[in-house]
Amino acid sequence: MHIFRNDTHLQHAPVHEFYDGALIPPFESAERARIIDRALDATGYPIHETISGIPESLLTRIHTHDYIHYLQHIYARWCTAGGATEAVLPSTLAVRWMHRHSPHPLAEPGYYAFDLSAPIVAGTWQAARDAASMAYSASLAVVNGAPYAYARCRPPGHHAGSDMCGGYCYLNNAAIAAETALARGRVAILDIDIHHGNGTQQIFYARNDVTFVSLHGQPEVMYPYFLGFADEHGVGSGYGHNRNIPLALGSDDATFLRAIDDACAYIQSQHVHTIVLSAGFDTYAGDPLGGFALTRDCYVHIGRRCAALGLPIVVVQEGGYAIEALGDNLVALLHGISGV
Amino acid sequence: MHIFRNDTHLQHAPVHEFYDGALIPPFESAERARIIDRALDATGYPIHETISGIPESLLTRIHTHDYIHYLQHIYARWCTAGGATEAVLPSTLAVRWMHRHSPHPLAEPGYYAFDLSAPIVAGTWQAARDAASMAYSASLAVVNGAPYAYARCRPPGHHAGSDMCGGYCYLNNAAIAAETALARGRVAILDIDIHHGNGTQQIFYARNDVTFVSLHGQPEVMYPYFLGFADEHGVGSGYGHNRNIPLALGSDDATFLRAIDDACAYIQSQHVHTIVLSAGFDTYAGDPLGGFALTRDCYVHIGRRCAALGLPIVVVQEGGYAIEALGDNLVALLHGISGV
Repeated sequence: MHIFRNDTHLQHAPVHEFYDGALIPPFESAERARIIDRALDATGYPIHETISGIPESLLTRIHTHDYIHYLQHIYARWCTAGGATEAVLPSTLAVRWMHRHSPHPLAEPGYYAFDLSAPIVAGTWQAARDAASMAYSASLAVVNGAPYAYARCRPPGHHAGSDMCGGYCYLNNAAIAAETALARGRVAILDIDIHHGNGTQQIFYARNDVTFVSLHGQPEVMYPYFLGFADEHGVGSGYGHNRNIPLALGSDDATFLRAIDDACAYIQSQHVHTIVLSAGFDTYAGDPLGGFALTRDCYVHIGRRCAALGLPIVVVQEGGYAIEALGDNLVALLHGISGV
Repeated sequence: MHIFRNDTHLQHAPVHEFYDGALIPPFESAERARIIDRALDATGYPIHETISGIPESLLTRIHTHDYIHYLQHIYARWCTAGGATEAVLPSTLAVRWMHRHSPHPLAEPGYYAFDLSAPIVAGTWQAARDAASMAYSASLAVVNGAPYAYARCRPPGHHAGSDMCGGYCYLNNAAIAAETALARGRVAILDIDIHHGNGTQQIFYARNDVTFVSLHGQPEVMYPYFLGFADEHGVGSGYGHNRNIPLALGSDDATFLRAIDDACAYIQSQHVHTIVLSAGFDTYAGDPLGGFALTRDCYVHIGRRCAALGLPIVVVQEGGYAIEALGDNLVALLHGISGV
């Protein structure tokens, strides 16, 4: 299990997000990465801290050029235009019947975001770019013959769409890993974060080379709410290559593992050559943004069942906000996958 | 000039909105209505404080049943679900590619809003319903033979769409006045608020019985940003019955009055029988949410040019945040219209 990480994420440390009617400290914090790193240090897995920079040509196969340009420059533009210096956060959003592009620095954040949980500060672009580079590097390792690799991405990625940030996500790391792994042939992304990987779904919804399958809390009651229903199967040539498995609040190990078996059978039917695992741990019992009741042991079993597919796996870090348990839960998953 | 008003609006007094990255006291406040009332009291216009309640059947011709039900009940549902008690404000919004309905009390505010400037508190529904009733009553007066009537609506309405609140607006008072005035035949709504009447446009975009014409700041640089461009002409049978006249920041009396002349010529070409005037005064020089440079005298001229069309006029209060000047600016407009 090759580990890819660096500390660029420390440049991304917004002081707040707007959530359920109040400004609060973000649940997604640098402390998450520190706790993961401590657990990884104890495993003996080879750790790679020199990350290959993601090529621009790869980034623009996942995200629009305009959106990338936006992420790079908006913080300075926003501040110059009078936006609050704590962070870029939209207040008017481009919605169902009003969604034409407007270039004003105080407007664009509402065009390129679906929520107020993706604050942008001065170092956000650098952190997001390096997280994407980790996913690229881990996937490259698998393309070059490693059976398993893990990218300790922070910020996470699965909520980021082709031209939208949200849910602590700016660049879609799992999508970038999948695009990279296409060098080996078709890819499946399995998303086990409790929150639907809405961005990943959107990016690949009309494509048949990357299959997306997600286990998550029912969108009727669980963030991000407005996508992720069971009847979303893909469109055009992507039809039949998207699978959502929404689960009820309170779901436990047994329920989750049955859904994992469903997902694995579906992945087998898709004849893929690589698996990208969007690994969130907010399914853990007591996670402050969760609602499931998984135990640590469940992550070992998830890992084993994924490994039983007999394919290389790129593990990409997504959510998980029960911070004290996060490192050990991750290591449980990685042990399950690699057997060591 | 018959004046319709009451004090139910006092029940709507949210402590904050989220704007340009910060929680701030709302620019739209009860003090606006107090200053307007003081100016109206000095005019001698007949004042009607007993308002006819708007029939449910009229309300549901403008707004969806589900949205009305949402407005009535969301504050209590939101608080029970753990939302901040200060006000209902969405944090995740239903946007371009994720906009399926989700019924969770912490999710629905993001389905039924396009921004964070329409906070909902315990008394919001009562205030919005009475504002709609004022617009209905003023329009009824015109239907029954009065040449001119004014509804001192608070909260305002022109940003509210068929199933969306935003920009201090919950129910679209001008749309309700127009729907009521259809008893006299076709109607034109002229919107002179500096912000595009996006909600009014959306409500009537596919209809040919109500024409919408709006003068406003260019949506590239002015809230609400994502609608209101000059090439939006209506759809279906509504094609040709929507006209946007975006004006540059800094526009002065002369520029605005030329645009009023354009708008009046367009209204004449539409062969309507009643005018509803969405009267915002945030075009006034120095308005904190504005960007134009109109003087008080301009409102007299606007009123005269509207009256020169020779049609009954229902004036509906929209924005205006240069509070100390608001009452006098309104009276200038009403004098211009009525000649007294």
